[in-house]
Amino acid sequence: QSNVVIYGVVDTGFIKENGSDTRMGSNIDNRIGFRGTEDLGSGQKATFELERRFNLNDGTLAQEGKDWDGAANVGLKGDNWGAIRLGRVNELTTETLRTLDPFYQYGVGSMLLSTQRSARIDNTIRYDSPDWMGFKFGASYSLGENMKHVTGVAYDPNRDPGQPQPDATPANVKYAGADNDGYAVMLGYDNGPLTLLGNWSRLADSNKSYVWNLGGAYAFGPARISLAYEQTRDKGWKEGEISIRSKQQTWLLGLEWLMGPGRLNASFNYGRVKDVEWSNNDSGHKDVKKYALGYTYDLSKRTSIYGIVAYSDYDDDQIAGFYRGEGLNNNGDPASYNRDSVTGVQIGITHKF
Amino acid sequence: QSNVVIYGVVDTGFIKENGSDTRMGSNIDNRIGFRGTEDLGSGQKATFELERRFNLNDGTLAQEGKDWDGAANVGLKGDNWGAIRLGRVNELTTETLRTLDPFYQYGVGSMLLSTQRSARIDNTIRYDSPDWMGFKFGASYSLGENMKHVTGVAYDPNRDPGQPQPDATPANVKYAGADNDGYAVMLGYDNGPLTLLGNWSRLADSNKSYVWNLGGAYAFGPARISLAYEQTRDKGWKEGEISIRSKQQTWLLGLEWLMGPGRLNASFNYGRVKDVEWSNNDSGHKDVKKYALGYTYDLSKRTSIYGIVAYSDYDDDQIAGFYRGEGLNNNGDPASYNRDSVTGVQIGITHKF
Amino acid sequence: QSNVVIYGVVDTGFIKENGSDTRMGSNIDNRIGFRGTEDLGSGQKATFELERRFNLNDGTLAQEGKDWDGAANVGLKGDNWGAIRLGRVNELTTETLRTLDPFYQYGVGSMLLSTQRSARIDNTIRYDSPDWMGFKFGASYSLGENMKHVTGVAYDPNRDPGQPQPDATPANVKYAGADNDGYAVMLGYDNGPLTLLGNWSRLADSNKSYVWNLGGAYAFGPARISLAYEQTRDKGWKEGEISIRSKQQTWLLGLEWLMGPGRLNASFNYGRVKDVEWSNNDSGHKDVKKYALGYTYDLSKRTSIYGIVAYSDYDDDQIAGFYRGEGLNNNGDPASYNRDSVTGVQIGITHKF
Repeated sequence: QSNVVIYGVVDTGFIKENGSDTRMGSNIDNRIGFRGTEDLGSGQKATFELERRFNLNDGTLAQEGKDWDGAANVGLKGDNWGAIRLGRVNELTTETLRTLDPFYQYGVGSMLLSTQRSARIDNTIRYDSPDWMGFKFGASYSLGENMKHVTGVAYDPNRDPGQPQPDATPANVKYAGADNDGYAVMLGYDNGPLTLLGNWSRLADSNKSYVWNLGGAYAFGPARISLAYEQTRDKGWKEGEISIRSKQQTWLLGLEWLMGPGRLNASFNYGRVKDVEWSNNDSGHKDVKKYALGYTYDLSKRTSIYGIVAYSDYDDDQIAGFYRGEGLNNNGDPASYNRDSVTGVQIGITHKF
Repeated sequence: QSNVVIYGVVDTGFIKENGSDTRMGSNIDNRIGFRGTEDLGSGQKATFELERRFNLNDGTLAQEGKDWDGAANVGLKGDNWGAIRLGRVNELTTETLRTLDPFYQYGVGSMLLSTQRSARIDNTIRYDSPDWMGFKFGASYSLGENMKHVTGVAYDPNRDPGQPQPDATPANVKYAGADNDGYAVMLGYDNGPLTLLGNWSRLADSNKSYVWNLGGAYAFGPARISLAYEQTRDKGWKEGEISIRSKQQTWLLGLEWLMGPGRLNASFNYGRVKDVEWSNNDSGHKDVKKYALGYTYDLSKRTSIYGIVAYSDYDDDQIAGFYRGEGLNNNGDPASYNRDSVTGVQIGITHKF
Repeated sequence: QSNVVIYGVVDTGFIKENGSDTRMGSNIDNRIGFRGTEDLGSGQKATFELERRFNLNDGTLAQEGKDWDGAANVGLKGDNWGAIRLGRVNELTTETLRTLDPFYQYGVGSMLLSTQRSARIDNTIRYDSPDWMGFKFGASYSLGENMKHVTGVAYDPNRDPGQPQPDATPANVKYAGADNDGYAVMLGYDNGPLTLLGNWSRLADSNKSYVWNLGGAYAFGPARISLAYEQTRDKGWKEGEISIRSKQQTWLLGLEWLMGPGRLNASFNYGRVKDVEWSNNDSGHKDVKKYALGYTYDLSKRTSIYGIVAYSDYDDDQIAGFYRGEGLNNNGDPASYNRDSVTGVQIGITHKF
């Protein structure tokens, strides 16, 4: 038992958004994990991580069928050469970029998410360098799941893979054309007040969609300002499932301010999408501006309460549906959300163990 | 790791009832839990509970998809003001009433269950008072899951929600008319030999069905006698799923007797149901008498073996089907069980850790 | 918490076989378990085991819906009389036979598996004798799941249960004719360099299919040679699911050699199947020869890396499909694999905690 550390987060509260009743939901993802390290001598270690993610409001898994959604990997680690892990791990690009978001991509204040992001990825070998005077390097390689190059029954190879195929069942889609391995590279610098990072990644089975981003942060006194830019080229698939073909650009400006017994967080996001197959209009771009403000009050090192307000102003209902993950409608076009601006309010409690 | 306590129960054995082969099954629900308490100072604490429920005979979850069926919540607790929890918690009314049942609502000897009970409930905020010279008070509020007031496609709003709609799929039913929040209040007194309690509750998404009950227990020497009465008004829905519209009354007389290295348990239940839409007869009531006797032999404080015998005498096959949870038949009427009396015998072993 | 021991294995790496891309997969089954022992005095103990099995490459359960696939049982144990467990346990016959396989029935080098084997079984009471000067005896009894002798709707009782019925849904098949309890007996001797064992078993709901085997091993210096023979009579059902009616014979010759900081493993398998309803040819037998070689390098007592190569030479594509678990094709015949020989290469890392 001394080989295993148990840790976790429990977080829930109430969320109210326009167009929906108050619901119970979390800010930081709920989790319980088991991890350990074995000293192999000569500065070498063996490591493992197993981490469940779940919904605290109803006790269900965060993602159906993912027993260890948060992490499931084994690895080796050396003081001088870094660490290597195999299995299900954090996606390197997402893991680093989200550190620039004052809301860490959680809750109603979360930064705008690229459609080609996945917080964790399967079938992956990931390398992390040690810290070289602030510089860090990371890389990962992920195997695709289409092992036998099967083409789905309902899949028409003459159609553009970026064109959603409404008659394709998920099982068929899974093995359809999006048949590529994935990889990611990360370069970072983190020393004193300054943080800089850059990423390039593509997910496995994504029809070679890709994302790149650049960002940085600077801390002075109790405040930290961050800035990031991300560009996404979505070619219509994500991890073997249909996504919405598009080009996306996201700008983030963030502020964290230690204030009283807690932290004030604020951010401004600007998102811009083009080349989506909107049913009525194939040309031009649409955008969204998002403003978020929150305060976290620490009851102790492990327990805090929070309140967050966010306002998103979309160009129209369709771009709202795109950013809020409404998926595709029956015509195979991006589905609309029923309004073009959304205010979200969230309060809750976070406890770490 | 010092922040987490691991606990649980493993229990299985054999059950034989008329009309079915011997099967393997448990008495006390199988579970493994992780819980912890953090001292925040000034008599204040943060708490969390995560508890799995499962079947020991085949290693499956007790309820499909419920990763933490037993509990999933975070809360605060104060010596002087009580405790508040958010998430998935014990339903207050069931938690207290079952303490009057010598079989604690487990196994073949369990008291008759109201169709508007749920041992645990989702999306809930629950308050428990501290003990004021024996007096206790509790209250809970649960959000409904029909967040957008959606009406199911196959749902006909002109039909009585108490009328089962055989063509309604579960997904449609889930979002059909039963669109209410739930709440519960409990008043209790527990001091020396005397226990008294009363409850009123309605579940979320139950078409405002409700239950109330009153009960008490008195201990003298090695014996404890308990008495309870419960009344249910089932309006055809339970947590968003179709239930059987009916009025139910239940009387319970219970006896627990410390005897030798264990306990003798005995109970008599009388249940009475009316206003059910029986296919052949809409009027009048039907009843059941249930007699249960059991003995639990303690091998240690944590391990015991048990034997239980129960006999249920139903008015007819239909009311047997109603109480044994046979659900609805193809006509949308309550399904019959294939006999009007059932003897159940159960033996097994319980181990707590 | 002192009542619970947490243990586990994490193992993953890469597997490449002819006819398929490289995939991520494990050698030793991934698991995390919780177990405990309570001293009841007088040499008696209470025991429990709860063990999850999962895939490390993607964090999913090893078997969908089996929360505790590895073990879920409670038991009693006495120094003088042995141990009894109830619930989900290791199948006795498989547990013992696999000790003669240098690859322990894991990974690409695994010995040929009988179609009437199950590593773990449900609804079981299992007895294990204490060690009597090297002699051991074990027995288990498993209840069938067809409690009410239901015959499936799509099941034609006039058809031979060994004949797959393509129109039978899994739910129907589950409750179709294969309605028997299961049991197993094991006799073993293990003393000094010599191991001998023999088994007879039939699974529950297997239409009384059965398996028996005999084997032994002898250790001299750093080497251990093992030999086993197994015979299977598959009557078309396995644990309530359709299997492929057949007679199977398997011979195993194994070698384990402690060499350097690890172990060399090698095996030769010869498998022979007859009386299968091949679509084109009902008579005669078909066979496979399998050669496997592996080396495990220990980085510590708990962590090791391994490499395995295996070559299987099948008589034809159909027998390859049979041994590789391709199931039934649309005609209800055993499905072919698309080649008659397969080379598998596997490398990876195992960490125990």
